[in-house]
Amino acid sequence: MKYRFFVSISLILLSMNTFSQEELPLSLEDLVPGGETYSKFRPQLPRGLAFYGDRIIYTKGDSAFLVGERGKDAVLLSVNSLNEGFGEEKFKSLPRISFPYAGQSIARLDYKGDLYLYDIVAKKQIATFLITKEAENNDFSVQSKTLAYTKDNNLFVMAKDGKEIPVTTESNLGIVSGQSVHRNEFGIKKGTFWSPKGNLLAFYRMDETMVTDYPLVDASARVAEVKNIKYPMAGMKSHQVTIGVFNPVSKQTVFLKTGTPKEKYLTNIAWSSDEKSIYVAELNRGQDTLQMKRYDASTGKLEATLFTETHPKYVEPENPVFFLKNNPNQFLWLSRRDGYEHFYLYDIQGKLIKQLTSGKWEVSSTIGLDEKGENLLYTSNEASPIESHLYKVNLKTGKRTQLTQEKGVHAVQLSLSGKVVLDVYSSQYNPGKVAEINVAKASVRIFNVAKDPFKNMTLPEIGLDKLKAKDGTTDLYYRLVKPLNFDPSKKYPVVVYVYGGPHSQLVTDTWQGQARGWDIYMAEKGYLVFTLDNRGTSNRGLDFENITHRHLGVVETEDQMTGVDYLKSLPYVDAERIGVHGWSFGGFMTLNLMLRHPETFKVGVAGGPVTDWKYYEIMYGERYMDRPQENPEGYEESNMVEKAGNLKGRLLIIHGDQDPTVVPQHSIQFLRSSVAHGTHPDFFLYPGHEHNVQGPDRVHLHEHITRYFDDFLN
Amino acid sequence: MKYRFFVSISLILLSMNTFSQEELPLSLEDLVPGGETYSKFRPQLPRGLAFYGDRIIYTKGDSAFLVGERGKDAVLLSVNSLNEGFGEEKFKSLPRISFPYAGQSIARLDYKGDLYLYDIVAKKQIATFLITKEAENNDFSVQSKTLAYTKDNNLFVMAKDGKEIPVTTESNLGIVSGQSVHRNEFGIKKGTFWSPKGNLLAFYRMDETMVTDYPLVDASARVAEVKNIKYPMAGMKSHQVTIGVFNPVSKQTVFLKTGTPKEKYLTNIAWSSDEKSIYVAELNRGQDTLQMKRYDASTGKLEATLFTETHPKYVEPENPVFFLKNNPNQFLWLSRRDGYEHFYLYDIQGKLIKQLTSGKWEVSSTIGLDEKGENLLYTSNEASPIESHLYKVNLKTGKRTQLTQEKGVHAVQLSLSGKVVLDVYSSQYNPGKVAEINVAKASVRIFNVAKDPFKNMTLPEIGLDKLKAKDGTTDLYYRLVKPLNFDPSKKYPVVVYVYGGPHSQLVTDTWQGQARGWDIYMAEKGYLVFTLDNRGTSNRGLDFENITHRHLGVVETEDQMTGVDYLKSLPYVDAERIGVHGWSFGGFMTLNLMLRHPETFKVGVAGGPVTDWKYYEIMYGERYMDRPQENPEGYEESNMVEKAGNLKGRLLIIHGDQDPTVVPQHSIQFLRSSVAHGTHPDFFLYPGHEHNVQGPDRVHLHEHITRYFDDFLN
Repeated sequence: MKYRFFVSISLILLSMNTFSQEELPLSLEDLVPGGETYSKFRPQLPRGLAFYGDRIIYTKGDSAFLVGERGKDAVLLSVNSLNEGFGEEKFKSLPRISFPYAGQSIARLDYKGDLYLYDIVAKKQIATFLITKEAENNDFSVQSKTLAYTKDNNLFVMAKDGKEIPVTTESNLGIVSGQSVHRNEFGIKKGTFWSPKGNLLAFYRMDETMVTDYPLVDASARVAEVKNIKYPMAGMKSHQVTIGVFNPVSKQTVFLKTGTPKEKYLTNIAWSSDEKSIYVAELNRGQDTLQMKRYDASTGKLEATLFTETHPKYVEPENPVFFLKNNPNQFLWLSRRDGYEHFYLYDIQGKLIKQLTSGKWEVSSTIGLDEKGENLLYTSNEASPIESHLYKVNLKTGKRTQLTQEKGVHAVQLSLSGKVVLDVYSSQYNPGKVAEINVAKASVRIFNVAKDPFKNMTLPEIGLDKLKAKDGTTDLYYRLVKPLNFDPSKKYPVVVYVYGGPHSQLVTDTWQGQARGWDIYMAEKGYLVFTLDNRGTSNRGLDFENITHRHLGVVETEDQMTGVDYLKSLPYVDAERIGVHGWSFGGFMTLNLMLRHPETFKVGVAGGPVTDWKYYEIMYGERYMDRPQENPEGYEESNMVEKAGNLKGRLLIIHGDQDPTVVPQHSIQFLRSSVAHGTHPDFFLYPGHEHNVQGPDRVHLHEHITRYFDDFLN
Repeated sequence: MKYRFFVSISLILLSMNTFSQEELPLSLEDLVPGGETYSKFRPQLPRGLAFYGDRIIYTKGDSAFLVGERGKDAVLLSVNSLNEGFGEEKFKSLPRISFPYAGQSIARLDYKGDLYLYDIVAKKQIATFLITKEAENNDFSVQSKTLAYTKDNNLFVMAKDGKEIPVTTESNLGIVSGQSVHRNEFGIKKGTFWSPKGNLLAFYRMDETMVTDYPLVDASARVAEVKNIKYPMAGMKSHQVTIGVFNPVSKQTVFLKTGTPKEKYLTNIAWSSDEKSIYVAELNRGQDTLQMKRYDASTGKLEATLFTETHPKYVEPENPVFFLKNNPNQFLWLSRRDGYEHFYLYDIQGKLIKQLTSGKWEVSSTIGLDEKGENLLYTSNEASPIESHLYKVNLKTGKRTQLTQEKGVHAVQLSLSGKVVLDVYSSQYNPGKVAEINVAKASVRIFNVAKDPFKNMTLPEIGLDKLKAKDGTTDLYYRLVKPLNFDPSKKYPVVVYVYGGPHSQLVTDTWQGQARGWDIYMAEKGYLVFTLDNRGTSNRGLDFENITHRHLGVVETEDQMTGVDYLKSLPYVDAERIGVHGWSFGGFMTLNLMLRHPETFKVGVAGGPVTDWKYYEIMYGERYMDRPQENPEGYEESNMVEKAGNLKGRLLIIHGDQDPTVVPQHSIQFLRSSVAHGTHPDFFLYPGHEHNVQGPDRVHLHEHITRYFDDFLN
């Protein structure tokens, strides 16, 4: 269900296959990730973008280049120069390169799982970490030059001497250290946290021995085999997390005394600058009370509870405290307590100094501080709910300056000095640009512009606009892709593509308005494809999102029907041929639309759908639905299994048989209920696939989905 | 995959719902087992047919009747009379009644799991066995009045005193006693064998601890649960069976010294008349060598190996030795050694005295001996390959007399005295008759004739006929059901309904030519429905059957294509609209036809299909295919998973997610391969169902199958 808005990442990860003009129509191989020719039709941007000091570098072929003035880029290093410096043919291709030491010429080189520190000026190896193949979750302390990593359920560290030091030696596989916990909710993406100087390593320890096993079956073995996963289901026993602090010198671990109840969420770990304290945003299992706590890293004792945030629905911390450069006794905290995500300045005693930003828009990420530490850089959607720009705000005056000017969605990275920003951005008609921004001067220099991969081709028309929700005030953004060679006097079938769940935004001012390749494919085939971000989705404020609390699917469906009513008002929409497709929460939404409005939708395709929230995980599920025992009416209202008898149209359910996120039980229970109710969904299983069908099989998936609409909607 | 020809059993089990005229067309509820109105459209025959001495009884409502002359039947007993006799209101409805003691008026009454012996003349209880609810596999010794039964994996006996005596006390659930072994192959249906006087109990003990677990997942639990079953797959480790002999008096068990190799088949257990010896047909794992062995029941020692049967393909014993009434030193043995199933008379030293029957037809079952023990009664298809009649053969002269005269398939039962036969039979236009046959006189008296449940209704026309196989000599019987209101000038779509595997015969001269209700339903909708018994199926001799050895699916498909060529020659067949449907081996055949002849078949529905014989069980699989390591080419040739890329038409795969016979892995692997090959079968899963979808859900299944043909073949 993790659906994050990282369009710029995908732009950066583009491959460099050369483009050649193709005949229309574009195929699924051209348009679907995993397709053979997919990369040819993605905008081509420089690879390996990074900073060397305040200079921007990128890689091309065997070399890394420094961005120069007016396209005069200079070779910084090459595979050959590296191999010369190493005195051996170590690199067959360019490693991943970064310069993590401010003001120094030491490169970090990541190559085939190993890690090297290498001074590109002195042409000298500084350190080498040859990592065992079983190692995962590598986390390198730049400061102490120590590497933390996990093997199976245990955590290890390795210093420059290359010796492995075990941090944990747990034989019970149900006790996992050094890995992400709480199923990656609350912004948690990893399980190790080096102190600022790299002298101490905080880490998560998760005891999930008490969590129910969910059996996934791998039928590709000689005889099918069970692969149990720990899956904490809503209302059932949850795992218990603690935080250890390991000292690689003494080899001792101290655990923070986080106490009882053991079922709670320890989120957003942050170190104080002096390495003496650890800040933890602690959330109760009910997720309605957050306490910001400070612990003594050397004793594990609780030093102070700095402040508490509560909300009758839920509180969802996703960003750790962020310390100021010039004052280690002050930090910034991101909170939606006024209804929108904004910065609050606190001192380390927990005293609120002031709210730094405010307004009916949301901060999306903290970028860093400028050179002097006077201005905070962050991105927000202040300019437009469907754009994202970089701003700086003066910590003293609160004065905001927009640093990115061109419309669209900007993904930015700040140099270590705080002087320069690397900006990668696109907008509906801009396939991608890369710019260097001088923070102090607020000046922008574009140094790369991607070509339109569809140049000279006639593509379906993509429109972005908004509607009013039934409340008469809320804007709902939508995207409408029209059939190729659109003729307004004709009647077209429509496919509503929906996600609709928290942490998502499908309609943004990015390249092609974030239209999916499949949308374009379907439009080529003569379908209208419509997508609307209903209430419950992201970046629009707390009320917009949490109106769905305790009855997921109800308001979301109402908003989607607002979209459908609009579609029906269009003269070129065939109201008898309306279909819907979505995956994950979008699969749940597809079921909601098919089963709450069986007269409206002729065809639906629900992939990896939640069908009953009591089968979904505790962390995400209980945030939005509370526990089943606390909210029986809400669980019943949102229960698609019980509504299976409402089915009138054609409904295809698709599930990956290894899905560890929305476990296969959801679809199987839906089928069971359908059989009992005498209704007839169709079903398909993707063996070996998890929550999303990825890789080359994704093309097969979209052939399958397309065929279903062709069979029954066309 | 067990597909036995027991049409008469189903006739006997009919319910007695009264018939009322219905409007055409008939619905799936009318025509499919499990349908609400299914029983209304089955021929109604008497229930509870049994012998009381040489008189025939049946039950109706609360009473049992003795069949009299010219319909003058007399009440034998009733619920009331039983309750009077018991002195309490023990029975709310009639128990199942039989009279197992020759010349005595003692009834065995089976009621709600308990068992009573009751003298209906003396109105006296003789014995009562109140059986615990966990008991299964009840096996009662009439002679010693002792009951054997299993609870979980252990075996128990209970004598008249009602005391439970454990025969085994095994705590390892992988060691099972008193139950059927070898996955019910080799005619094995149970695991306990009382000696003739009931003094000793032989039983199977099966050690399956070394057999691989197959994980079935029950997704209807709160959190899906694994239910492991022991599943011995072709080429892998098999279970090990031994035979114990328990003496309820001494409470001692002796095991037969069946020796090594431990992986072999101990089949067709039989006791000598004097209870001193046990005969076992021992078959090697390779199933090409059978040894008839006699063991000493008191010591377990091997007394003699009486004879050996071998065949380069396979030997398949399915009937135990049968002792003569007048000579305990002689027995009959059924063997296909001359190419057809016939009786051979042996003495107990293993000397062949003579072959008793011969000819190009097959004995189907041993019925018993006549009063004087001079004639053997048996059924065979001597009269016609698609009929089954009762014969007696004189043991001395070999003279055969046909005792049943009317055409069709006769299911018979002999009275204890050997004087009278109860005959239940039907033929294509005869919904069912019940007759009493005097064995000595060979006279037949019909005392019940079922009404045609479709009287006054116009049904699709059902034709039975035969074709020549491509060898130019072999007869292949087929059934063709024509659409209602058939118009030979029109073009109709055809569905080929196929099974095609061993132990099956779908085309017989039984009521409606054994047409399935679904065939009739489809014909009502305008489809032709065609079924042909290809080579590899039953009752046609060894060569007809074992031509498929080591390459299942190849000749079977060739024969089905002979049928399809015939269909294409018919002016009213639309050769562009040929579909195929089958289940189990018929699912395998559906895949063979769709993938070996992709240009011919537009639509297929394969239920519970074998897709790769290496995933099927050892006993059945290795008989026909040998081990995968012995026959890699054959396994490859018959591997549908590898042929998934051939798919051109529309193919729906259906599987029960609890299928313990053809495990779900078959279908999942086929889907995996289809995705890899870029082909697009459809799929449906029946949650909670095993190898066949039964009960009311069977109507849903046939709605689903029908819809698929309507969607893509019509």
